[in-house]
Parts: sequence; structure tokens; C-alpha cells
Amino acid sequence: MENNQIKNNAITRQEDDFAQWYTDVCKKAELMDYSSVKGFIIYRPYGYAIWEQIQNYLDKRFKETGHENVYMPMVIPESLFQREKEHVEGFAPECLIAETGGSEKIDDRLIIRPTSEVLFCEHYSKIITSYRDLPKLYNQWCSVVRWEKTTRPFLRGAEFLWQEGHTMHASEIEARTEALKMLDVYDDLGRDVLAIPFSKGRKTDKEKFSGALETYSIEALMPDGKALQCGTTHYFGNGFAKAFGIQYQSKEGKLENPHQTSWGVSTRLIGATIMVHGDDNGLVLPPLVAPIQVVVIPIAANKPGVIPAAREIANKIKEAGYRVKLDDSDKTPGWKFSEYEMKGVPLRVEIGPRDIEKGQVVVAKRNDGVKEFVTNDQLIDKIKELMKLIHEQMYQKACRYLQDHVTDVSDMKEFDKAMIKGGYARMNWCGCRECEDKIKELTNATARCIPFNQMDVKGTCPICGKEAKKVVLFAKAY
Amino acid sequence: MENNQIKNNAITRQEDDFAQWYTDVCKKAELMDYSSVKGFIIYRPYGYAIWEQIQNYLDKRFKETGHENVYMPMVIPESLFQREKEHVEGFAPECLIAETGGSEKIDDRLIIRPTSEVLFCEHYSKIITSYRDLPKLYNQWCSVVRWEKTTRPFLRGAEFLWQEGHTMHASEIEARTEALKMLDVYDDLGRDVLAIPFSKGRKTDKEKFSGALETYSIEALMPDGKALQCGTTHYFGNGFAKAFGIQYQSKEGKLENPHQTSWGVSTRLIGATIMVHGDDNGLVLPPLVAPIQVVVIPIAANKPGVIPAAREIANKIKEAGYRVKLDDSDKTPGWKFSEYEMKGVPLRVEIGPRDIEKGQVVVAKRNDGVKEFVTNDQLIDKIKELMKLIHEQMYQKACRYLQDHVTDVSDMKEFDKAMIKGGYARMNWCGCRECEDKIKELTNATARCIPFNQMDVKGTCPICGKEAKKVVLFAKAY
Repeated sequence: MENNQIKNNAITRQEDDFAQWYTDVCKKAELMDYSSVKGFIIYRPYGYAIWEQIQNYLDKRFKETGHENVYMPMVIPESLFQREKEHVEGFAPECLIAETGGSEKIDDRLIIRPTSEVLFCEHYSKIITSYRDLPKLYNQWCSVVRWEKTTRPFLRGAEFLWQEGHTMHASEIEARTEALKMLDVYDDLGRDVLAIPFSKGRKTDKEKFSGALETYSIEALMPDGKALQCGTTHYFGNGFAKAFGIQYQSKEGKLENPHQTSWGVSTRLIGATIMVHGDDNGLVLPPLVAPIQVVVIPIAANKPGVIPAAREIANKIKEAGYRVKLDDSDKTPGWKFSEYEMKGVPLRVEIGPRDIEKGQVVVAKRNDGVKEFVTNDQLIDKIKELMKLIHEQMYQKACRYLQDHVTDVSDMKEFDKAMIKGGYARMNWCGCRECEDKIKELTNATARCIPFNQMDVKGTCPICGKEAKKVVLFAKAY
Repeated sequence: MENNQIKNNAITRQEDDFAQWYTDVCKKAELMDYSSVKGFIIYRPYGYAIWEQIQNYLDKRFKETGHENVYMPMVIPESLFQREKEHVEGFAPECLIAETGGSEKIDDRLIIRPTSEVLFCEHYSKIITSYRDLPKLYNQWCSVVRWEKTTRPFLRGAEFLWQEGHTMHASEIEARTEALKMLDVYDDLGRDVLAIPFSKGRKTDKEKFSGALETYSIEALMPDGKALQCGTTHYFGNGFAKAFGIQYQSKEGKLENPHQTSWGVSTRLIGATIMVHGDDNGLVLPPLVAPIQVVVIPIAANKPGVIPAAREIANKIKEAGYRVKLDDSDKTPGWKFSEYEMKGVPLRVEIGPRDIEKGQVVVAKRNDGVKEFVTNDQLIDKIKELMKLIHEQMYQKACRYLQDHVTDVSDMKEFDKAMIKGGYARMNWCGCRECEDKIKELTNATARCIPFNQMDVKGTCPICGKEAKKVVLFAKAY
């Protein structure tokens, strides 16, 4: 029989090697496995179930905000892909290309979609003719392929699962509003579901999406001090619309090009969740995305009545609407404690002969290990209360970490110190590309985002000494 | 303003050209559109929403029966694909193959998955070691690619959406039971959701899936007298397990190969639903998959109070849990009637000034055109009743058509007559491939399935005159 020690020793400690800790957790918690093609991972049931919870939340929010799901082809003819110049330049180096169908060569080679802007545009050019056809608010759930050299589970993959929203609007203001509205939906997902505080803002021109006029992003701070871009929304103006000949007749009878947005989040959010909350015992999952929310573990399971009592408790929790697992296998309680800690199950319920006598159970929280006795008749109310509490505690802990790791800097010495500490250097910036490049060259940090609501920027840019236009969050990033 | 005539004339009549009627409906009801790559269609919101309803039902059933969702890579290295000989021979002619990644040639070419047996097997070979690991009950929702020469929307596509279940079991009997159980789940989907009576049975060796020991199928009969295979489940024995080195240690300590199944249905089910129920006015959708279940149409909408009353009715129906649409656009009621008939909306609610005075609405059923007045306070109960009734009427109508088109035949003359009438020829069969080939050669019909529960087969095979082993349903097929 396996024992606790073996199980625990299998995970590298965070402070010893954070990257290895991450990989260990991904594998040992059975979130994923490698396939025989580099960068293409297998989303195992426990990992995929987290994605399903994210999908459930987002799909509901998308539909509530008037979006409709569609499904576009997974291939893009090379000739079509090349129609928007900036876009193709951004993606061409990482395209997987199909050249043979059956036994024949394909003349116009097929690119496996790295993103679907051009497919949506081609379709929109056929179905949009009048102002009555606008807005078009489409979303797609699918996988995309990027032929990346360096890949890491969930964080950067040759193939990953995502959603991509693509919308068309009659006016610029409506499209810009859409890009910001969907950023807020992503931000809500972080706060209310993943217990992750995102930093929101606009990307610099350098960091924008290929072909976009504006890119907005949500960024999360990881325990190793690096930022992770967790989602983006884009305002395209009418550049693609012009390139693809998308025109509509306005109310006034004029031919116009509509204004476009796109926005997406991916299974990278699973990676963010693992890193933001995990500890040396493994995953710590926020209750709303945990595939198993409560695990019930019988103690002294060989004693008469223990297994049936544990089953009764598990059924009661299930009927109350929670995702519950009863582990009545013949492994030791110690092995099970360790296993479900590793898997990040938010709440553990223990029940043994003495508890049964007293009509109680022991409830233990994964996030801080706090245990308490709860009487059976109060159990469901207690679980409801603890689920909320665990989410709130996890969110607050992540907020504190974030607050502690935003350092205001006014020169490069302070910048370097901030980088050594980890997290964001919040700094004045003149707005020019040269200074941004210089920072990257000197520190390897990049502009993560320009936070919103910058009312009164004062002072100068520490690089060039010119007047500052914006305050920017810089950080090393994944 | 468009009018009814133009709208109706746009659909070919079924009896004039059934294939053209089908294509017209797919396009005009906005279920799909063509993309710039042959055979790759765009699933538009109205078509995709039908698939979402099918997914919702099946995903729930799969989870209730203990299955877990996973996601495997969309590419299969050619070397891996070739490991199971029969399987590769079945699929090789229709593979789309990627040979370039970024700017480099890929040594082991990547096949875009036509189905994922080999990916699941490779993964199973890593994660199955003990009888405790069994059964593995995995399912995947994804799209697959088959490089087909002749394609038709939803019926045969170069890319289509589907689910593929892949399971591993310790015993043959358990695996065989799984294959039959999932066939029953598909059958339930037909009866309870799509209002389609499926004919269930086993496939002949000739019609089996490449690599399977048994293939079971659900077949539906189309109004043009042709059968459409709507889903299959397979029992593989342990052939793949041996080819991929999947072994587990049994309770008794012996190394064994597990027994495997796979099973799938696809967006072809949308095609079946269109054809089985549609009429010359367009789609007729079963209430449970209809993206819009009730459309509310104001009559004399310019009269004061009509639009608010219609909105109130629509909100009430929405609150009762139905998918409802209020069309308060400036098009004529006649245009709207025609439009939502075309789109197959099960129930139309009309409300005009006189109805408002009387506290009533008019309710019209799409499937048979029956209209009645309903008072506002009885509306929700009435809708509930009519939804059930419409489903039942549609199902019974399809059952009658099926029953009328199964012809018992005892010689080839009768077989030919049955083919002229359309539908199935139910015939004795000796069980040999030669006779099956002969029937195909003479009539172009194929063995659709060998129905279950054949207790006492009597008589001879009309082709060879030998003793009959089975009674088989033959038909021309899509």
C-alpha cells in the first residue's frame, strides 16, 4: 500500500524549484498528461472538469449579454489568411499547415486555425448587408494550434482550448464598449469564480494583438513574482472589415464598414489557478471550479456502520447540490488525506465510530487546514458557509499578495529592486517605444498593462526624462 | 419589404427534388453556411444551438452513467496511427495530413484526427496498470476531419462535430454490455428528444467499423426512403489493447489486456432531424431541441398597447422556462409567420388588439397548423401541454412512416418493389459476404442492421438458397 510520505515527496517544494513544483502538480494531481507530440497535452478528467466549470460560468454570461455560439472550420486557406497583413505577420511563424488530403496535394495549403478572425470576417462579409444585421455577437468554443517551440502545460501549448468572441458593430463607440464589457466579464470570472484578482488595463502598442487598434488584458501575478496574461479583448476598428469587404447600408443609406472586436480566454486560466493558490501539498482549488468540492473519508472503515454512515453523509451532501466524492477504498485515511490535499479538494469530511456515536463529523478546510466538529443536522448549512468562506479567504490572500507586490518605482535602481522582490514595477512612462524596449533590454520585464482611470499622471519617464504620459505596470512575464 | 411569397418560393418542394429541398432548408433557415474550403461548413447560431441541446442531453446521460470528459490532441503522429492495421486501412484514404510546423518540415507527419482510438489507447497504456484502474469510462466532445470527396451539410462533412466515448473494461461481458448500453442512450435521445424512432441492431461484418469486433448502430429512415446511420457503438475486444501494449494486473495477479469500446454520434443528427420532420414550409423542430420554442408575434403592432402586451406575454413564457422570441420588428405578420414556419419554431403565439380586449392569445402549432384561442391565465399550462403533444405527434408520425416502410421480402422481385416504394427490405440472410455483396450489386442497397432479439429465424436466403441465419434490414443509405 502506498503511504503518505511517498505521495508528498513526489512534489518538489515551491521554494526549491517553482517551475518543477508546477509540473509535478499538473502531473500528480492528474490534471494532464503528455502526448507523443510535443506541446500537445492530454486534458485528463480532473483538469478538463475545471475547464467545464469555467465554460459553464462564461457561456452563461456570454448568452446573458446577447452572444450566440457558432462553429467555424478548423482550417483556413493560406490565401485567405494572408488578406490582413499585420495579422498574418503575427501568426505565420507558428502555424501548423496541412498540405495533403487523402492522397492528393492541396493547392491552397490549409492552416490549422491559430485564431479565427479571418474565418469570421469572411462569413460576416456574406451575412452583413444592412444596419439591421448589426450588431453580430458571435462566440466560438474550440481548440486552436500554435506551433510553439517552448511549451508548458496549460501555460503555453501547441494546442489549447479556448473561446473566441468575434463581434461586429455599427459604431466605433459600441465596439469599444464591447471590448471593455467583455474584459469586465473576465474580471468577474477571476473575482467570483477563480478567486484571482486580475490587474486590468490597456496594452502598449508593442504588446498589442496583431491587427488590433487596442488590446486590453487581464493579468494575474504568480507566486514566483511573474505576471501571467490571462485573457485579452481587442478593438480592431474597421481594418479587417475593409480587408474582407464587409459593408453594410446604414439607416441613412450610406455604405459603411462595421467596427470589430474579438476576445478570448483559454485553458491557461487553469495554469493561473494552479499557481495562484497551490502550496507544497499540491493544488488548492477554489470551490466553484473544484471538480470535487467535498471528499468524505471514513475513519476506521472496517468498524461496523462506518461505511454506511459515510455514504449517508455523502448522499446528503450530493442532494444539497455539491460535487462530492466518497472514498471508501481500502487505502489508509492518511493516504487519502494526502491524496485529496494534493488534488486541492476544498473541504474534507471525516467520519469515524466516535463521530457516529456523537452524531457529528470533522470538517477540514484545504486552504488553511482549519478543522472543526460539526453536528450532522448542521452539516449542509456549514458546508454552504465554508464554501463561501474558503473562496473569500483564497481571494483575499491572493489580493494581499498582489498588493504586496506592486512597487512604485521612479528610477532603474528601484526598478531592479522591484524585480528582485518579484511582482510589478509601477512606473511613469513617456509613451514611446524606445523606452519600453530599453526596459526590456535592461530588466527583461515587459509592459503588462496600462491601468485604467489615470487622471493625473505627474512627473517624468525615468528612461528618457521626458514628461510622463501614463503609469504602467511592468513585470517579468510568462 | 419582403413578403411571404418570396420567402416560400425560395424552398424547393420535397416532391420536386428532395435533395434540393434539404439544401434550401439548411441555408434559408440559417442553420449553416459554406466556407471557402469544400466540405468544411460553418455552423451558424441557429444550427449550433440545436447541437447544444443535443449535447446538454447526452452529456448529462454520459455523466449519470459514470463517464468522464477528457480532451485529447487533435493530431496523431502517422507512426502511431499505423499501429493497428485494420484501423489505418479504414481511415488512411480520407486523412488530412499536416507536414509543416512554423517554417520546418515535420518528420513524423501529423494526421488531423479522423477519430481518436489510437490517442486514447496510447494514453490508456500509460495510466492502466491494475484491475483497480478499470473500468476507464472516457468521453470527448470535439470535431474530427475526414477528407471526403462528396460532402453534404450535416450528413457528410470534411469536418464535423461529435462526441466519441472510449472505454476500457476488465471483462469482455462488461465491455459488450457498455456498447449496448450506450446504444440505448442514443435510442433514448431519438425517442425522447429528437422524436425520431431509430432502428437498432448489429452491423454485418462488411459494414463494421475498421478494427471493431462488433458494431451496433441506430438507423433512421428518411422521407426519400433512404436510411441514415445516426450513431454507432463498437466492441473492440482486446485487439487495440494488444497492439498498444495496454495491460493490467488482475486480482489474481495475472497480466491481462482490457476489453475496449467506442461510441459516437455527430452533428449528422441535425441532418436527420431536418429530414425526418421537415415539410414544404421548411423546418419542423422537435420542442426539446428547438433554439426558439415559442415565437410571439404582435398583430396590428402599430395599435396602442399591442407591443407592450406581446412583450408581457413573452416575458411570462420566458419566466416559465421556455426559449421564447418576441418579434416586434417592423415586418408584416405574414412575413413573420412564414419566417418562423421556415425556422420550424414549434409554437407561435399571436396577439392583437381584439385578443388583448378578450384577455386571450392565439396559439398555432407548427407541426400540423392547428390553431386555438387560449386565455392568458391558462397560457403557460397550455404551452406545457402542447410541447408534450407536439413531441408526441411528431414521434408518432415518424413511427407510422417507419412502419409503413418496412417491407418483408422473400425474393429479389419483392426486394426491388420494396426499394421502389422506399424504406427497408426485411429479408432472410444466410450470413455470407457474397450474398450481401450480390444485393449491393443488384439493388445498391446495403445491410443497415441485424435487429436484436431474433429468436426463430426460419426459411432460406433468397440469394443463395441456403438456410437463413438472420433477418436483416436492407436499404439504400446516405
